[in-house]
Amino acid sequence: MEAKYVYSFEEGNKDMRYVLGGKGANLAEMTNIGLPVPQGFTISTDACNDYYKNNETISDNIINEIEEKLKELQEKQGKTLGGEINPLLLSVRSGAVFSMPGMMDTILNLGLNDTSVVALANSTQNERFAYDSYRRFIQMFSDVAMGIPKYKFENALDKIKEAKGYTLDTELNVEDLKELVKKYKEIYTKEIKSQFPQDPKEQLMLAIKAVFKSWNNPRAIVYRKLNDIPSDLGTAVNIQSMVFGNMGETSGTGVAFTRNPSTGENKIFGEFLMNAQGEDVVAGIRTPKDISSLKEVMPKAYDEFMKITSILENHYKDMQDIEFTIENEKLYILQTRNGKRTAGASINIAVDLVGEGIINEKEAIMRIEPKQLDQLLHPRFESKSLNEATVIAKGLPASPGAACGKVYFNAEDVVDAKNRGEESILVRLETSPEDIEGMVCAEGILTARGGMTSHAAVVARGMGKCCVAGCSDIKVDEYNKEIRTEDVVIKEGEYISLDGSSGCVYIGKVEKTEVSLTGNFEKLMNWANKYKSLMVRTNADNPRDAKAAIKFGAEGIGLCRTEHMFFDEDRIPAVREMILSKTLEQRLVALERLLPMQQKDFVDIFRVMDGKSVNIRLLDPPLHEFLPHDDETIKSLSESMKVSVSEIKRRIVDLDEFNPMLGHRGCRLAITFPEIYIMQAKAIINGAIEATKEGIKVMPEIMIPLVGEAKELKVIKEDIKETIDNILEKENMKIDYTIGTMIEVPRACLTADEIAKEADFFSFGTNDLTQMTFGYSRDDAGKFLGEYVNRELLEKDPFEVLDQRGVGKLIELGAKLGKSVKPNIKLGICGEHGGEPSSIEFCYKAGLDYVSCSPYRVPIARLSAAQAVIKNEK
Amino acid sequence: MEAKYVYSFEEGNKDMRYVLGGKGANLAEMTNIGLPVPQGFTISTDACNDYYKNNETISDNIINEIEEKLKELQEKQGKTLGGEINPLLLSVRSGAVFSMPGMMDTILNLGLNDTSVVALANSTQNERFAYDSYRRFIQMFSDVAMGIPKYKFENALDKIKEAKGYTLDTELNVEDLKELVKKYKEIYTKEIKSQFPQDPKEQLMLAIKAVFKSWNNPRAIVYRKLNDIPSDLGTAVNIQSMVFGNMGETSGTGVAFTRNPSTGENKIFGEFLMNAQGEDVVAGIRTPKDISSLKEVMPKAYDEFMKITSILENHYKDMQDIEFTIENEKLYILQTRNGKRTAGASINIAVDLVGEGIINEKEAIMRIEPKQLDQLLHPRFESKSLNEATVIAKGLPASPGAACGKVYFNAEDVVDAKNRGEESILVRLETSPEDIEGMVCAEGILTARGGMTSHAAVVARGMGKCCVAGCSDIKVDEYNKEIRTEDVVIKEGEYISLDGSSGCVYIGKVEKTEVSLTGNFEKLMNWANKYKSLMVRTNADNPRDAKAAIKFGAEGIGLCRTEHMFFDEDRIPAVREMILSKTLEQRLVALERLLPMQQKDFVDIFRVMDGKSVNIRLLDPPLHEFLPHDDETIKSLSESMKVSVSEIKRRIVDLDEFNPMLGHRGCRLAITFPEIYIMQAKAIINGAIEATKEGIKVMPEIMIPLVGEAKELKVIKEDIKETIDNILEKENMKIDYTIGTMIEVPRACLTADEIAKEADFFSFGTNDLTQMTFGYSRDDAGKFLGEYVNRELLEKDPFEVLDQRGVGKLIELGAKLGKSVKPNIKLGICGEHGGEPSSIEFCYKAGLDYVSCSPYRVPIARLSAAQAVIKNEK
Repeated sequence: MEAKYVYSFEEGNKDMRYVLGGKGANLAEMTNIGLPVPQGFTISTDACNDYYKNNETISDNIINEIEEKLKELQEKQGKTLGGEINPLLLSVRSGAVFSMPGMMDTILNLGLNDTSVVALANSTQNERFAYDSYRRFIQMFSDVAMGIPKYKFENALDKIKEAKGYTLDTELNVEDLKELVKKYKEIYTKEIKSQFPQDPKEQLMLAIKAVFKSWNNPRAIVYRKLNDIPSDLGTAVNIQSMVFGNMGETSGTGVAFTRNPSTGENKIFGEFLMNAQGEDVVAGIRTPKDISSLKEVMPKAYDEFMKITSILENHYKDMQDIEFTIENEKLYILQTRNGKRTAGASINIAVDLVGEGIINEKEAIMRIEPKQLDQLLHPRFESKSLNEATVIAKGLPASPGAACGKVYFNAEDVVDAKNRGEESILVRLETSPEDIEGMVCAEGILTARGGMTSHAAVVARGMGKCCVAGCSDIKVDEYNKEIRTEDVVIKEGEYISLDGSSGCVYIGKVEKTEVSLTGNFEKLMNWANKYKSLMVRTNADNPRDAKAAIKFGAEGIGLCRTEHMFFDEDRIPAVREMILSKTLEQRLVALERLLPMQQKDFVDIFRVMDGKSVNIRLLDPPLHEFLPHDDETIKSLSESMKVSVSEIKRRIVDLDEFNPMLGHRGCRLAITFPEIYIMQAKAIINGAIEATKEGIKVMPEIMIPLVGEAKELKVIKEDIKETIDNILEKENMKIDYTIGTMIEVPRACLTADEIAKEADFFSFGTNDLTQMTFGYSRDDAGKFLGEYVNRELLEKDPFEVLDQRGVGKLIELGAKLGKSVKPNIKLGICGEHGGEPSSIEFCYKAGLDYVSCSPYRVPIARLSAAQAVIKNEK
Repeated sequence: MEAKYVYSFEEGNKDMRYVLGGKGANLAEMTNIGLPVPQGFTISTDACNDYYKNNETISDNIINEIEEKLKELQEKQGKTLGGEINPLLLSVRSGAVFSMPGMMDTILNLGLNDTSVVALANSTQNERFAYDSYRRFIQMFSDVAMGIPKYKFENALDKIKEAKGYTLDTELNVEDLKELVKKYKEIYTKEIKSQFPQDPKEQLMLAIKAVFKSWNNPRAIVYRKLNDIPSDLGTAVNIQSMVFGNMGETSGTGVAFTRNPSTGENKIFGEFLMNAQGEDVVAGIRTPKDISSLKEVMPKAYDEFMKITSILENHYKDMQDIEFTIENEKLYILQTRNGKRTAGASINIAVDLVGEGIINEKEAIMRIEPKQLDQLLHPRFESKSLNEATVIAKGLPASPGAACGKVYFNAEDVVDAKNRGEESILVRLETSPEDIEGMVCAEGILTARGGMTSHAAVVARGMGKCCVAGCSDIKVDEYNKEIRTEDVVIKEGEYISLDGSSGCVYIGKVEKTEVSLTGNFEKLMNWANKYKSLMVRTNADNPRDAKAAIKFGAEGIGLCRTEHMFFDEDRIPAVREMILSKTLEQRLVALERLLPMQQKDFVDIFRVMDGKSVNIRLLDPPLHEFLPHDDETIKSLSESMKVSVSEIKRRIVDLDEFNPMLGHRGCRLAITFPEIYIMQAKAIINGAIEATKEGIKVMPEIMIPLVGEAKELKVIKEDIKETIDNILEKENMKIDYTIGTMIEVPRACLTADEIAKEADFFSFGTNDLTQMTFGYSRDDAGKFLGEYVNRELLEKDPFEVLDQRGVGKLIELGAKLGKSVKPNIKLGICGEHGGEPSSIEFCYKAGLDYVSCSPYRVPIARLSAAQAVIKNEK
């Protein structure tokens, strides 16, 4: 069978999104369930890939198929493209497999030329409409298909308006528009060195190519990266007969969500504009009206629309985002798709749909993108601080959350600020796809124009980023880089705070508060616990983090780093004394001073974790990290320690390393200075005894870092066991403790069978394991890693998403070898990846027992762990 | 069956060396082939291990076995241990599985006490002999078994000699000796707080324990490490009835090699002393006579001995090292073993034995320890320089080779010098086992006393280290740290040169010359080529090294590092300019300047390697390695480049890395700066064209370093291929070239199937692979690696000997995955391990095609490669 590249809407269905794109598949589906969809056809994503394969040309067979479908469409519509009597006009839109709002380009009114514009004027009896449509088409086509800058056309328009003294576009009369069409064609000719194409088929082919090309425009590439969309999917092209919302006061256009995308409330949510085309709503030029008011304007169309929204939501079993146009009171549905929503809405909708019997718990769990939870888990403004804060303006609560930052007025400045380590707020009149990178880097987004479905609002919600949109209380002066209100001027670099849930804009920094799991969120998390099999632990080095993690459902500590405890101001002198000791005796004295402090650390953590496992990693970093490097501190250290400055400097130089990552650290320290781990072991067990005596259930796991050879672990374990067992015997106590190791050196994975003989548990330290497996220093890789990801040499930054093909293989091998000698060995992961959804699924499949992540990622990990089980059931 | 721990000589044979030790097994073998061996029995190595297992006690069942065998021995001899009439005297000697000369301790004349000494005097009619034996026994027992310092006894002896005005020990009469025995017993009592043990069985058990203990004395441990002898083998103990070479002028003792251990000449080589015990020969106190003169002194014994040497050599099919004693004209063989020999002798003997039909070629190949070849491959003195040099003394040519260094007078100073990076000569009156570490660290050894079989000579030959022994022309003043001859004084730290083949000692530094493969060495190497299957290539970055390697039989270049070419004084300015370029254009200009220089490098190498493969690795190190770090060079660079100092410094800081090993280097440079590799590719192919036009056969292999992901290699390969193919097309030439990669990052091994699709060859870069697999920075690991090897946490330094359990697993995986997609992919290794015998055997077993090593290691690699095949045939 020959490949098929073009499908009429009647030939498709919703499951064909990989062929027809999301939009095309849904247009087909709606057509087939009898909804009023303007007729048309879809050019498949395969055609797009074919286009790129053929060096950016459309194959003849595809052209033939297009012409055939166009012929069918003309017959169905009884109109001819470019026809002199009843001309067929087309919209040409992209339609990728996964929704990429604002990323791809659209051309409307295609088919207009100097002849058909007259025919359109005749057939609609509306000459102004016809010429308005023609000038819009010329501009859109020139911009989108031919790359002529939009402002050239806008300047021409402004000039006419100025000359005539108009303020609104609607004031332009037919003659003005005819003049404008002439001007626009001149601009085209000047830029392209040829006449504006009068052949509608040429227009069509150029438009299709433009859609294909836009698949690889920089904004699209950024969006795909941001949303993990493979770059080889390609985009489909939807060719649809035009319907017009701008045919006068019985026409209009709008978008609506079947539920509230910000809160999840089960109530239609949307906007419309009378006498307008679709872009007018999303572009935010005119402020649209709430969908509910359509009832009064056009009750019949409204009722029909409401019926259709209900049909669509039930059909797709999810909240829908629907575009519609009313042409002379007749309703058309132009698009439906699963609506983007905030994390909060996402949860509420999923839980509600379960309550309504539409989906089940597992489906609800699968509906939530784990990463999206991030926005629910970040602090909100503290109410006390909020009460004291000064509101300078109020806009639309476009995407919830709390954000503080310095204001910057364009994407580049925000990116620069981010690189300098500053938190910033992107402030724009209105955002456009060019702002995407700035939106990624900003803490929050503030726009002066646009509604709840404006670009800024939709994209920010998708990102889970705080956004206040359409804030007409402020003047945004992008040129002078300042925000002005009646009372205040805020200049570039000054702080503001945004509350995305209330729409309030505050001057200065407003304090944030902690968040917790309640209501539907809690319900969903409980379902997650019901289905997940991986335990979720947390990385926490202090009682505060441990408490926060427990609140989020952490089932233990997977990594308690002890070195952070050493940096404390009270302790660092003793640590330095220990390091600078010349003899074992001196070192023992210094360690003796540290012992009670470490012991207290552990008691405090044991109290918080009562009944839950606490995995404590013994000292890991190279000793030079604890030594000062500035002359002043060295001098004061010299005085307090009564050691000469030169002696200290000599020691610092001695300890310096070429590659500290691969140097004298981790268990290697314990081989040369066994007394350090022995002190830590004492502190742990003394702490455990103290806590146990208070009635607390203590479950310590002692973790030896950086083991690469079983014998290292063996000798260190013997020292620790001896230390602990002596103390327990003396105290006549029994405390169950285990001793295990980080698996973070490639060799540890390769020899995991030998290491397992000595270990009660393995915790895969995927940060270091990634560094060594790739040979990337995390501190240095910035110089090339960005380029690697951009050029797709690597799919992802392997420090964020576990590299399953390389590092993952080592983990699988380590797990397999470990279990081969000790089937019940406890296996976990404690690198950054422990909170990353795809990495968690990998851990589940690799047979690990737990993942450990930062406190705020615990819910993400719980949800991901549940999804891993459900996904792999199929 | 109950374990057996004690074997009479009749019960053993030569194949039981793991049970009886080498000495015991050979004593048993000789006993059973009817040679005159003093009767006795051997306590097995198992008994030694049992001793250590039981917390350093000898089990009762072993004691019972010993007593039983002792009873048998007494019956056979018709004597009783400690008997009052005809007392049995015993020697107690250690006997390890592998010969460890001078390492273990011996006690002679055991069984003497205040009663049996009288009986011995009576039975031998030689009272002086009896008391001399008794005082020797007390001293040896006290020293070896009880740890009383020897000098205490020597002082007592010296006092008597002084009081009586004697110069020689032989001047002591019976009364003197009786007095001395009394004194010695007093010393014993004072030190040990108990009487000297009179019970011979107590003496025996203490002596056996002393042997067991000596297995773990520090010298023994050092020797084992040096010679790769496992520490869990244990030592056997040989208990043998005494025979006396010191019974007067019809008695004597000696050692002989069946061939010359220094040259391999097929002629008996040995020394003896009349009226002496064995230690007197090896200790170097009296200067022994050549074995040939025994013919005149005792023709009958000499003839019998010659017959026996021939029997033994034919029996063992190898050159033997034999100890003998003549007691009252009766010859006894006390020991035989395969004699230690120089590398040169080793080759000559092996080749001669093939010529004599005693062994075959393969056996000859297996006879040579590849590492030993090292001594043949090091430069000798240049004859011109030698003619001009001043000989200050001449000693015995104890171990061949040429050595230059600063003189030091004790082992510690030599070790310190080595640590400072100095070459040194260890100068001693005579060496003892305490000097082992100094001998390891010295370039050569010079002693004033001792013969060809003295400690210094034997150990130096074993190590392949140059040694001039018994150089009585010089006075060695260890106290004032100087060497004095009639004419000159050489102080500590001044240079001398030693010729171990002539025995000459030169003042100052004598130039050395290259060596080559000729004669038997060449013959053996040709046999090696006949049996080996691995190709042996060399690592060479310049024509000089390439030439040297070809002379040694290199079959190609396995690693030509291009960065070394960049450090050249002429080039570094252009390199720095390239690095400091702000734009691509500037960088291209600088690279254009480097191009002709690189091209010349390659032409020169291609000329030398005519017809052989040349594997060229493109730029590998991080760019900051090429930048200056001292202010002066920065300033002059600033002037020559017309770039401000601060700009240069900023760039240096920019390029600085936390972990350069894991930083922006290797192919990562080519991802960010593709133009660098493109320039190198041009230089290679232009060079190849130039050489081809000269009629040279060029086989370039282009190697991309540090690949961790197939896509890296893919994009770089495309650039290079395009560059080269364009040039070849333009020149209308055809040159076969291949493009492959280093496999040196763990992830490359893990994803080798994907990488193989893009690679014509893999070259395992085991230096970096070891660093990353272990997580050891080679530059920093010195801080702990020594301790790891000493404490046996690692068997070997993994940078010297390939870690087969860890790194080896990755190599096997990489080779397997690579072949799974490309069965004929060429596989090699180019790390330091390519010249290390056990690593080469691993490479053979892992299915690699070639190894590559430094030029001087090529013969070692060829031999190892042949041995790998032969070993694995079995």
